[in-house]
Amino acid sequence: VPTEHRLHSGYAHPLTRSWQEGNVDIDPKKLMLPVFVTDVEDAIEDIDSLPDVKRYGVATLPGVLKDLMSKGLKSVLLFGVLNRIPKDESGSGADGEGSPVVAAIRVLRDKLPDLLVACDVCLCAYTSTGHCGLLNSDGQHDNAASVKRMAAQALVYARAGAHIVAPSSMSDGIVGAIKKELVSAKLDGRVAVLSYAVKFASSCFYGPFRSAAQSAPKGVTISREGYQLPVGSRGLAHRAAARDVEEGADMLMVKPGMAYLDIVRETKDRFPNHPLFIYQVSGEYSMLFHGAENGAFDLEDAVMETFKCMRRAGADVIISYFTPLVLELLNNH
Amino acid sequence: VPTEHRLHSGYAHPLTRSWQEGNVDIDPKKLMLPVFVTDVEDAIEDIDSLPDVKRYGVATLPGVLKDLMSKGLKSVLLFGVLNRIPKDESGSGADGEGSPVVAAIRVLRDKLPDLLVACDVCLCAYTSTGHCGLLNSDGQHDNAASVKRMAAQALVYARAGAHIVAPSSMSDGIVGAIKKELVSAKLDGRVAVLSYAVKFASSCFYGPFRSAAQSAPKGVTISREGYQLPVGSRGLAHRAAARDVEEGADMLMVKPGMAYLDIVRETKDRFPNHPLFIYQVSGEYSMLFHGAENGAFDLEDAVMETFKCMRRAGADVIISYFTPLVLELLNNH
Amino acid sequence: VPTEHRLHSGYAHPLTRSWQEGNVDIDPKKLMLPVFVTDVEDAIEDIDSLPDVKRYGVATLPGVLKDLMSKGLKSVLLFGVLNRIPKDESGSGADGEGSPVVAAIRVLRDKLPDLLVACDVCLCAYTSTGHCGLLNSDGQHDNAASVKRMAAQALVYARAGAHIVAPSSMSDGIVGAIKKELVSAKLDGRVAVLSYAVKFASSCFYGPFRSAAQSAPKGVTISREGYQLPVGSRGLAHRAAARDVEEGADMLMVKPGMAYLDIVRETKDRFPNHPLFIYQVSGEYSMLFHGAENGAFDLEDAVMETFKCMRRAGADVIISYFTPLVLELLNNH
Amino acid sequence: VPTEHRLHSGYAHPLTRSWQEGNVDIDPKKLMLPVFVTDVEDAIEDIDSLPDVKRYGVATLPGVLKDLMSKGLKSVLLFGVLNRIPKDESGSGADGEGSPVVAAIRVLRDKLPDLLVACDVCLCAYTSTGHCGLLNSDGQHDNAASVKRMAAQALVYARAGAHIVAPSSMSDGIVGAIKKELVSAKLDGRVAVLSYAVKFASSCFYGPFRSAAQSAPKGVTISREGYQLPVGSRGLAHRAAARDVEEGADMLMVKPGMAYLDIVRETKDRFPNHPLFIYQVSGEYSMLFHGAENGAFDLEDAVMETFKCMRRAGADVIISYFTPLVLELLNNH
Amino acid sequence: VPTEHRLHSGYAHPLTRSWQEGNVDIDPKKLMLPVFVTDVEDAIEDIDSLPDVKRYGVATLPGVLKDLMSKGLKSVLLFGVLNRIPKDESGSGADGEGSPVVAAIRVLRDKLPDLLVACDVCLCAYTSTGHCGLLNSDGQHDNAASVKRMAAQALVYARAGAHIVAPSSMSDGIVGAIKKELVSAKLDGRVAVLSYAVKFASSCFYGPFRSAAQSAPKGVTISREGYQLPVGSRGLAHRAAARDVEEGADMLMVKPGMAYLDIVRETKDRFPNHPLFIYQVSGEYSMLFHGAENGAFDLEDAVMETFKCMRRAGADVIISYFTPLVLELLNNH
Amino acid sequence: VPTEHRLHSGYAHPLTRSWQEGNVDIDPKKLMLPVFVTDVEDAIEDIDSLPDVKRYGVATLPGVLKDLMSKGLKSVLLFGVLNRIPKDESGSGADGEGSPVVAAIRVLRDKLPDLLVACDVCLCAYTSTGHCGLLNSDGQHDNAASVKRMAAQALVYARAGAHIVAPSSMSDGIVGAIKKELVSAKLDGRVAVLSYAVKFASSCFYGPFRSAAQSAPKGVTISREGYQLPVGSRGLAHRAAARDVEEGADMLMVKPGMAYLDIVRETKDRFPNHPLFIYQVSGEYSMLFHGAENGAFDLEDAVMETFKCMRRAGADVIISYFTPLVLELLNNH
Ligand SMILES: [Zn+2]
Ligand SMILES: [Zn+2]
Ligand SMILES: [Zn+2]
Ligand SMILES: [Zn+2]
Ligand SMILES: [Zn+2]
Ligand SMILES: [Zn+2]
Repeated sequence: VPTEHRLHSGYAHPLTRSWQEGNVDIDPKKLMLPVFVTDVEDAIEDIDSLPDVKRYGVATLPGVLKDLMSKGLKSVLLFGVLNRIPKDESGSGADGEGSPVVAAIRVLRDKLPDLLVACDVCLCAYTSTGHCGLLNSDGQHDNAASVKRMAAQALVYARAGAHIVAPSSMSDGIVGAIKKELVSAKLDGRVAVLSYAVKFASSCFYGPFRSAAQSAPKGVTISREGYQLPVGSRGLAHRAAARDVEEGADMLMVKPGMAYLDIVRETKDRFPNHPLFIYQVSGEYSMLFHGAENGAFDLEDAVMETFKCMRRAGADVIISYFTPLVLELLNNH
Repeated sequence: VPTEHRLHSGYAHPLTRSWQEGNVDIDPKKLMLPVFVTDVEDAIEDIDSLPDVKRYGVATLPGVLKDLMSKGLKSVLLFGVLNRIPKDESGSGADGEGSPVVAAIRVLRDKLPDLLVACDVCLCAYTSTGHCGLLNSDGQHDNAASVKRMAAQALVYARAGAHIVAPSSMSDGIVGAIKKELVSAKLDGRVAVLSYAVKFASSCFYGPFRSAAQSAPKGVTISREGYQLPVGSRGLAHRAAARDVEEGADMLMVKPGMAYLDIVRETKDRFPNHPLFIYQVSGEYSMLFHGAENGAFDLEDAVMETFKCMRRAGADVIISYFTPLVLELLNNH
Repeated sequence: VPTEHRLHSGYAHPLTRSWQEGNVDIDPKKLMLPVFVTDVEDAIEDIDSLPDVKRYGVATLPGVLKDLMSKGLKSVLLFGVLNRIPKDESGSGADGEGSPVVAAIRVLRDKLPDLLVACDVCLCAYTSTGHCGLLNSDGQHDNAASVKRMAAQALVYARAGAHIVAPSSMSDGIVGAIKKELVSAKLDGRVAVLSYAVKFASSCFYGPFRSAAQSAPKGVTISREGYQLPVGSRGLAHRAAARDVEEGADMLMVKPGMAYLDIVRETKDRFPNHPLFIYQVSGEYSMLFHGAENGAFDLEDAVMETFKCMRRAGADVIISYFTPLVLELLNNH
Repeated sequence: VPTEHRLHSGYAHPLTRSWQEGNVDIDPKKLMLPVFVTDVEDAIEDIDSLPDVKRYGVATLPGVLKDLMSKGLKSVLLFGVLNRIPKDESGSGADGEGSPVVAAIRVLRDKLPDLLVACDVCLCAYTSTGHCGLLNSDGQHDNAASVKRMAAQALVYARAGAHIVAPSSMSDGIVGAIKKELVSAKLDGRVAVLSYAVKFASSCFYGPFRSAAQSAPKGVTISREGYQLPVGSRGLAHRAAARDVEEGADMLMVKPGMAYLDIVRETKDRFPNHPLFIYQVSGEYSMLFHGAENGAFDLEDAVMETFKCMRRAGADVIISYFTPLVLELLNNH
Repeated sequence: VPTEHRLHSGYAHPLTRSWQEGNVDIDPKKLMLPVFVTDVEDAIEDIDSLPDVKRYGVATLPGVLKDLMSKGLKSVLLFGVLNRIPKDESGSGADGEGSPVVAAIRVLRDKLPDLLVACDVCLCAYTSTGHCGLLNSDGQHDNAASVKRMAAQALVYARAGAHIVAPSSMSDGIVGAIKKELVSAKLDGRVAVLSYAVKFASSCFYGPFRSAAQSAPKGVTISREGYQLPVGSRGLAHRAAARDVEEGADMLMVKPGMAYLDIVRETKDRFPNHPLFIYQVSGEYSMLFHGAENGAFDLEDAVMETFKCMRRAGADVIISYFTPLVLELLNNH
Repeated sequence: VPTEHRLHSGYAHPLTRSWQEGNVDIDPKKLMLPVFVTDVEDAIEDIDSLPDVKRYGVATLPGVLKDLMSKGLKSVLLFGVLNRIPKDESGSGADGEGSPVVAAIRVLRDKLPDLLVACDVCLCAYTSTGHCGLLNSDGQHDNAASVKRMAAQALVYARAGAHIVAPSSMSDGIVGAIKKELVSAKLDGRVAVLSYAVKFASSCFYGPFRSAAQSAPKGVTISREGYQLPVGSRGLAHRAAARDVEEGADMLMVKPGMAYLDIVRETKDRFPNHPLFIYQVSGEYSMLFHGAENGAFDLEDAVMETFKCMRRAGADVIISYFTPLVLELLNNH
């Protein structure tokens, strides 16, 4: 056996093992918590499909986040949920009068000035069609109109004080369109664009989220497969990331997480100069939660292993519903 | 929006979507079934930790596999389980008198000549210590002795008729040692070595298997972390694969699967000329099973998506307990 | 201005700035403390050339390190200093009767079992010539004899319980020679070799160390430039690292640190699979210390910036006399 | 030991050592002297924070530089300092009536026609806010207005006879804006743009300069971290250099020097076709100066080693306060 | 015209032009003088084919070289010429009794200790056949015997004090054979091997040398094309350099120079870690000399341009008969 | 000696040697003849500086070329020389009334329809200043005006029937400007642009040409170093070629030839999809001619070796005054 083939010596001790694990450390700066904000101010609602995750109103949210900030929380990603405001064709609940996200941005920037506030930019939770954009008269996705509409939505969030706007609709050209709005408003130096650049049309891992955000598509004629990427496609993933980089995205995202780590690695290798986010989505959360509940493994072990794996694959920041659990673990460590 | 930035056009139709998904087809030739064989000839035992998976004896196994072959099954990976034969320091139950694996090889080659038979080569299911090798007098892993012992074990399986021997112990130099034995026995042209080259010390995903194979380590002083790779280590993964390629491995494996797809991609990119196997391990099986049981998603959708993801990441062959389910789906498709 | 040329948006906030700083976190596992051990058991000696650094005897060392371990210290690198034992031609004080390093290994393994103990392997602190090896009868460096002598020294340290042996002499072939000794002694799976693979003949940054370790060369005819690398040589740096990787080094080192970060980056890029150490040497320590003393900058700021820079350049572990200060800062952070 | 592993033979002699040091030679053409010019014509002022460095007026400067030119000095980089002219919001002292830099360009081009004159282009030494640009009414950096203002400043310097204008503000788009001004004025074939493309927000190494240039920011609400790069960020460094190359920069700079040599190497490797400058900044100067003063090393050795290291890392031209010392050494060599 | 397409600005001034010329400086350390030494001690002989070049004996050589050393000369490459000693089949004049090279090494090491002495290792100037090696009984090149013979010759030179031995015969395996001799003699750490790794069978540029060294092949049946490389072959050039690197060459050479600069560049790119020599051969010398004599150009301009071109192509050291002229120019510069 | 290190076997025979020489064949299609055309119709003038080369008038030229075509000549590159027409500031002799080049294009297209006619596009042979362009009122190069002027010149040649226009002035943006003119004139599909993309400011190799073309600069204030590239600059060479490729050049040229083969190789490697021309310039012609005249080598051998070297370096077409000699050799071969 050539000496170079003897590997045990390099990882025989817990400390040497840690040295072999390049850059997989987890700290609160590398975690972002997805938050559901409803238009019912004092709401605290359970979400059946996501055990231990809740929806909050703008009155209840600051207290909950303040608590988490005391454990290290640094950033949130806001998703709006409409309970009272009616959905309509243009998704005006996204950024119009009474928009829960706009209200939440203002209250968080005011009450928790140290918290970084990112906002999902899409229409699916606000349109009567449940579609991630506007439709033509023939019921087809109207990309130009959708992009214009959502660039305006992003600008409203930016003006309200969002640090980051995160377009998730996979519309062609959305990043560049938002950037131009920000430049016109002289906000381009202050507000970042985090692109959901590589978002796959997972057939199963988004289910729990859709009921949490009440954004499941209503019609049967339209599927999200026309804009979210085919599960098996590396090519479109690479083209989408390249496009968003060229259009000026400040950060990139791959979504879902665990079963897409190869794409995370390839995206990081191709665009090493852009911070890379990964979204551990609702179906992953559920699967780990129920696996542990049923004795397959210990939940904390499993969550920490998947977080380490996501970091190993090249993710710089992890968006996860497990953020409160991990903050707890980091504090007790 | 530059025309090159408009991507929707390329995947608007189900067929164009399929074209975007390079090489992600699943067919029976790309599937391998892990099988637990006990030394109780007529056994059919449930495994608590792995719902719907069973242990068989050499009398019951051929019938079950014949059935699956009618649905397309092409290959199996055998793991021995000792119920009657006592475990000892040298793991003689692995390949000695009454070895369930040796018996199974013989009966399968005889009764199911069209089935490819691969055998896991390790001692952990047979040693009284539950260790994947032999120990020195001071209780430390003795790599040289372990390699010698397991090369002999592999040769017994090869002589019994195994098409593939698959060393899983992560011993330094094991691939080269087995190859030398095969050459000496003039079996090198007939028997392939599938190396578990990149096997991580997962803290949670191996649990159900260990009770299935009754191979959990007994002592507390020895951990498998001294030979299985640290979860976060890309470097050792690359060195281990390179080493085994240099020592003559015919095929490589990455294990576990889902949370390690970045490593699958990197291994495939570095060693494109070697068929790459991926092992969807017991913890993954459980997690998907229980996620579906609890309503997070549809099991068939989830299994097919993860299979497609593993293929997208570069795996050529998938070793999975879901093989029967997938064969069923392929037949109904 | 193309949107892609607008960079401010990506680092306008302290948290987004941290995301742009890929993998530069400092934690105690990434720090190693160099320690001078004398053959005077109860010594606590100031070192004029290295303010705030001391030499300890084996009786005083454990207490000091235990204290630092309570603040997070995980590993040390031992250098022996002879005050009583006479130096001789073969450097027998390195590993013979009364060797301070051997004594220190034993006491540290016994009293501080959680501490990883690494040992510098060289003769310069023990030979009457102050040379890093043995000389021929004509006064020239005898590489073959030196390698044999230091491989034996390494084995003594390994047998005494060192987790890591770290040859620093830049002798041709020393890594392979040590590895062979460890294999023969069946210690190859437990003891790692950290090679000072890329050690430059700095004309100024080693001065304070040499008086700390009392290892300045005595003669005028022999210079270390015959084995330490020329300051401006990238080529030899790359060849030396490649050589040591081929000979089985488990980890690599670049030395000195700050003014050699380009070599750190190139070494990491060429050998990404090996943990990379950087030694922030005595002259760097002094320069930062005196710069701060004279008001050029704040010491803590300067140390943390240089540590971040070393991490950015690709170092996995930093060996530094500032380790106690940094542990303090990490605890108060 | 394979013969290829024997490296000593290649650097056993001083001349062979020099051959191993590829392209690290230092000559006067590769040195640029930073010069502080005040608006007090006959000034010769000491700078407390930078021992041995002085500020000069336009009457005293030519004589001093003529002397250095007799020792080989080829180029200077001018920084203006206002003692009499009041600072204002638009930094009109930079290029308006009585601007010390404009006056210096004219006198130097007239009296020392063989001297290449480069000018720092920024506003921080001239604005009442101490900010590197103009502010919006809400006190935020106004990038568009800043770029326009500084492009005009650069044109004034170019028209006065500067050979090189060197924008240091890290404003997005400044290089392209200056180039366009030069093209309009038909000066694009004669005046080069040296971009401070990769300028890090060092927390400690800029201190002495700021008091030398009297340019420390006045307010507390604005930090330079919004435009200077995060210390640990490779990604932004690469993006900034790429941007400036695309916008037409003739030469690039990395700043600070010593602790950023990895970035120097990466920048040279990515943009090998552009001459690369490195700025050994004031904090580095101080640290080497005080290290030597306190006996850690010999100043001349240390300076020459750091210069060689900067050249090894890929720098083509070194901007340093040690230029007079090095010219002296080269003359005596 | 895009600003990036405007290049004039970057080289409008003599100093900016010099910055664009990366690393093409010429200094005495980068020059090596080829020297012809005859076995007539007090000889000073003109060479018809090489105007201004002479052959010296060991009595006259030191004075001439001392003079050149006062102008900067650092190294010589010795070629022996036999006037008195008869040539024989084994080329015993190369290293036997009265060998002019051995005598010259000794006298130069004694009288000019600061001069680096390199020696050409070949037999063509000493064999009665004029062949670069030994012949089989059938008159064919005997590679094995030749290698053995010339490895012995190299060892004689090394023992006499040569710093560098330079095998020029293009024998297969000669570098490794010489290295092994040096290791056996414990001279491997002191004596370097400079391989004429890439030596082409130029049909015209070697003519003047052969009459200078009196080494033109005598027979008609043997051509040097059997071992020197075909003029148009890049492939063999790359293989030869790779081979010699693997066999442990410390430095490499390409020969001839001017018309082979593409090979110089490719060799440097492939083996950047080895100092690269280029031999400006006799035909190039003559061509430049006579071109200038006939008014085509100024000799000094032409020589300096070709030297700069050789450096630009990647040569680290230039071996040239123009060395005295260039030293003169550098002194007057 | 490893078998892979034995190279002689691959080139022991003349035929195997030829196989080792990739793509170095010379045939008439790969040769282009530079031709000097004067405005004296029946001229046949000797050129002192270029023995055996002559200037012709439009009446004498066709006969001479017809002769060469019978030996294989396929293409010429025309340079105009003014004997009668006065030079002026705008170089109107280039393309105005009586232009020798325009006249030659017409007569050659008429009388020798199978000959490809390329024309040098520059003003230096026609301006009273001898400058390659127009000057500003302050005597500086006016790039914008020069580009406009020479694009018009190219269009005149194109309209007269030139197959190729070859801009040689190294003006920034000239290729793109000519392309635009050709497009406007709907000639872009018929007329190719061969860019002198990489033309170095050789200090010596252009001398004989300048007296042949009577184009030596007249003034002393302007040097061609402001637009021709610095001899040692790889960076500008690469940027210039890239620029011209982006601006639409159909073919590229490197000039001069022999001492710039490294640049030929790098240009071919970077732009493999564009035919690459090399210009063996007048100084090279002279040097080879006089070298041979003085007995250093045989002229035919030397010319053929340099041609082979240029082809080996990557040149597709060779422009040389030796074209008639080589055609002769090819016919006799
Ligand atoms: Zn949506
Ligand atoms: Zn096992
Ligand atoms: Zn030492
Ligand atoms: Zn500034
Ligand atoms: Zn020879
Ligand atoms: Zn011209």
